[in-house]
Amino acid sequence: MPTQLEQAREGVITPQMRQVAEDEGRDPEKICHAVASGHVVIPYNAHRSFRARGIGAGLRTKVNANIGASGLRNLVEEEITKLEMSVQYGADAVMDLSTGTDLDAIRAELISRSPVMLGTVPIYQVASEAAEGIIDAEELFACIERQAEQGVDFMTVHCGITRHTVETLAARPRVAGIVSRGGSLLASYIRRTGHENPLYEQFDRLCEIFAAHDVTFSLGDGLRPGAGADATDGPQLAELIVLGELAERARERGCQVMIEGPGHVPLDQVEANVTLQKRVCGGAPFYVLGPIVTDVTPGYDHISAAIGGAVAAAAGADFLCYVTPAEHLRLPTVEDVVEGVVATRIAAHAGDLVKDVPGAREWDDSMSRARRRLDWEAMYELAMDPVKARRLKEGSEAAGEDVCTMCGKLCAIRTDRLSVDETPGEESGSGAST
Amino acid sequence: MPTQLEQAREGVITPQMRQVAEDEGRDPEKICHAVASGHVVIPYNAHRSFRARGIGAGLRTKVNANIGASGLRNLVEEEITKLEMSVQYGADAVMDLSTGTDLDAIRAELISRSPVMLGTVPIYQVASEAAEGIIDAEELFACIERQAEQGVDFMTVHCGITRHTVETLAARPRVAGIVSRGGSLLASYIRRTGHENPLYEQFDRLCEIFAAHDVTFSLGDGLRPGAGADATDGPQLAELIVLGELAERARERGCQVMIEGPGHVPLDQVEANVTLQKRVCGGAPFYVLGPIVTDVTPGYDHISAAIGGAVAAAAGADFLCYVTPAEHLRLPTVEDVVEGVVATRIAAHAGDLVKDVPGAREWDDSMSRARRRLDWEAMYELAMDPVKARRLKEGSEAAGEDVCTMCGKLCAIRTDRLSVDETPGEESGSGAST
Repeated sequence: MPTQLEQAREGVITPQMRQVAEDEGRDPEKICHAVASGHVVIPYNAHRSFRARGIGAGLRTKVNANIGASGLRNLVEEEITKLEMSVQYGADAVMDLSTGTDLDAIRAELISRSPVMLGTVPIYQVASEAAEGIIDAEELFACIERQAEQGVDFMTVHCGITRHTVETLAARPRVAGIVSRGGSLLASYIRRTGHENPLYEQFDRLCEIFAAHDVTFSLGDGLRPGAGADATDGPQLAELIVLGELAERARERGCQVMIEGPGHVPLDQVEANVTLQKRVCGGAPFYVLGPIVTDVTPGYDHISAAIGGAVAAAAGADFLCYVTPAEHLRLPTVEDVVEGVVATRIAAHAGDLVKDVPGAREWDDSMSRARRRLDWEAMYELAMDPVKARRLKEGSEAAGEDVCTMCGKLCAIRTDRLSVDETPGEESGSGAST
Repeated sequence: MPTQLEQAREGVITPQMRQVAEDEGRDPEKICHAVASGHVVIPYNAHRSFRARGIGAGLRTKVNANIGASGLRNLVEEEITKLEMSVQYGADAVMDLSTGTDLDAIRAELISRSPVMLGTVPIYQVASEAAEGIIDAEELFACIERQAEQGVDFMTVHCGITRHTVETLAARPRVAGIVSRGGSLLASYIRRTGHENPLYEQFDRLCEIFAAHDVTFSLGDGLRPGAGADATDGPQLAELIVLGELAERARERGCQVMIEGPGHVPLDQVEANVTLQKRVCGGAPFYVLGPIVTDVTPGYDHISAAIGGAVAAAAGADFLCYVTPAEHLRLPTVEDVVEGVVATRIAAHAGDLVKDVPGAREWDDSMSRARRRLDWEAMYELAMDPVKARRLKEGSEAAGEDVCTMCGKLCAIRTDRLSVDETPGEESGSGAST
């Protein structure tokens, strides 16, 4: 079975490309061309069946929620609830990042229940199951193949952790070192054994597995900065260059590819990070992990990430991995998951408003017209989180009233509408736009 | 008693300038010059006594919390708690925006308790007390003078609402019309009476009152956009030009001046708004209300505002008015106030990190080094909200452990530190920076 990329190159418009075109208000031919060029990916494992979503240039910015148990908290029911809530609040993808035990069973359960694309980081399983955390190359490939057969749609593989890129770390020490789990495991493997990273050394073998099941590569940034002080440094860029080379090799072998990005990045470096990635990786979709724009906000990193994510999305990032209030502190709870999904959707939408994504501006304008009409039911319906919007207004002293407790009778909209209506010749704002 | 500006022009370094210099790590001479040029203001009513803070170029971005009762919710004790929590969570200023009844008493209470600068919007009181909301010019000036005598440090006055600027609205209808309370009241006054705005027509009279008590002008943007669709439009810019002219006149009369800005602004117009304001208003400090970068997030507008506020701060905005989750829905609760203050401080700090504010980068680097050491006590202490950071980690299954429930034994920092320590010749990240 050819991959989406291989079919696109033949000019075949797959059912998944049609679904993406329909949902995005785009022409199916253009989606096909974008997939062929590698500028758009449609993560969709050949063994799965769900309504596909595309990620990449010209499309709505997508949002991923990380779920999954950990060795210190392993409750499958809770992870299923997180999956359901992520989807309910608008996540376009979930990643099962479970570590600990029973990982195949947890993953099978989540895949069978997920109506959206699902990603994993296979090295977590190998490290969880390995004695003393020592990675075995053959076990790693076997695990990747098993997960591909299970139906995982995209996988993070840290192929850019190489003897060379790890050496660059020694030459330019960092404040925070390596903060990627996969990155730290592979760097440790290289340092201990002196061997090359098997995911890099046997990259063609990886491509064969990915192509056989149409698993989309998410080339991981194991050397991403874990502190603002380390952002956009030599090791990060050395790895990015490797990822750009591997992206091209993967596409040549028929595989879809996206690239993962930072991390902790000060606000004035976010746009440069997107520009660099797009240039170095041949326009591959960019999947950023935040970025968070300050290091001092544990408990509120979803807000710090929304700032960085919005600026990244506006600059061309295609896929935002959520950050929750639990980041740097604990595995997220269900409430943390909801906060994280909504905050990240805000960032994505703020970006979409300025990159001409169909429907983005219209959504905001509908809300603004509802506000001008003081039409609360329409406002709740149009809110990104209708439940919370309704709860805050209708739980206040102004429940059911046309104004709210903020301004009461001094409501600016009411004052303005009354005075405009009394003024001959001046059009009402609301009338002008309907 | 001469104003801070008048003294600065004489080269007098006031105790307030010294306090600002000390807290900001700047030279008192430079603060004095910046006040003299109008690029920095120190809102500090001549009748008050508290530790002064400066607002403007080269200084830490400041945060304001709006508190105050409304006609529909009038509980003085709750507003006092909001004041205390705002200050505890790091607000640099509060505005008492009370409407309804007993306004003089509420204000006296809040002024007496506030350890930070306090601002008001006097027209709210006049409109609250006026029969049928009709503004009387003499009552407005009397109210302003009374509040100045009471000790208000800065006042929002919507002097840019003029017959001309209101006419521009008719020529270019908006989606959301006027969304500023003061703006809508004065536009309504102009439309109904045909008279000019008294705050514009008698601006010199206003300057005399402000100068007599050293009240800092906060020239309000009554025509600010209340919808992304209306951002940076003709009426908004027409008003900004008027504010620029008035700022110069006020400074000539010895008054300190800052300028208020939007509002609802798409991400790609935020920087332009800051650049325009700085150019048109002679470098006066810019006090932005958000800006929020999308209209569809009621319940989460503090996040939307953090995105816009961070980008504005990075571009040179000096003072961020907080937005809470209650925005567009209700008067904020105490919990909303805390969320709003923290979100806005994140935005301010993200800006400070990229505009070379002394201490900003060092704060983040200290946190990153604590993370590398897995020193949780230091992380809590350095967190913007130490209480929440501690609660999330210590309330989890990993309470007291050196790792957290996110990664458990696969903690990247632990893996990386162990492997670096075993590798001869490679420096530890943490060691490199201490």
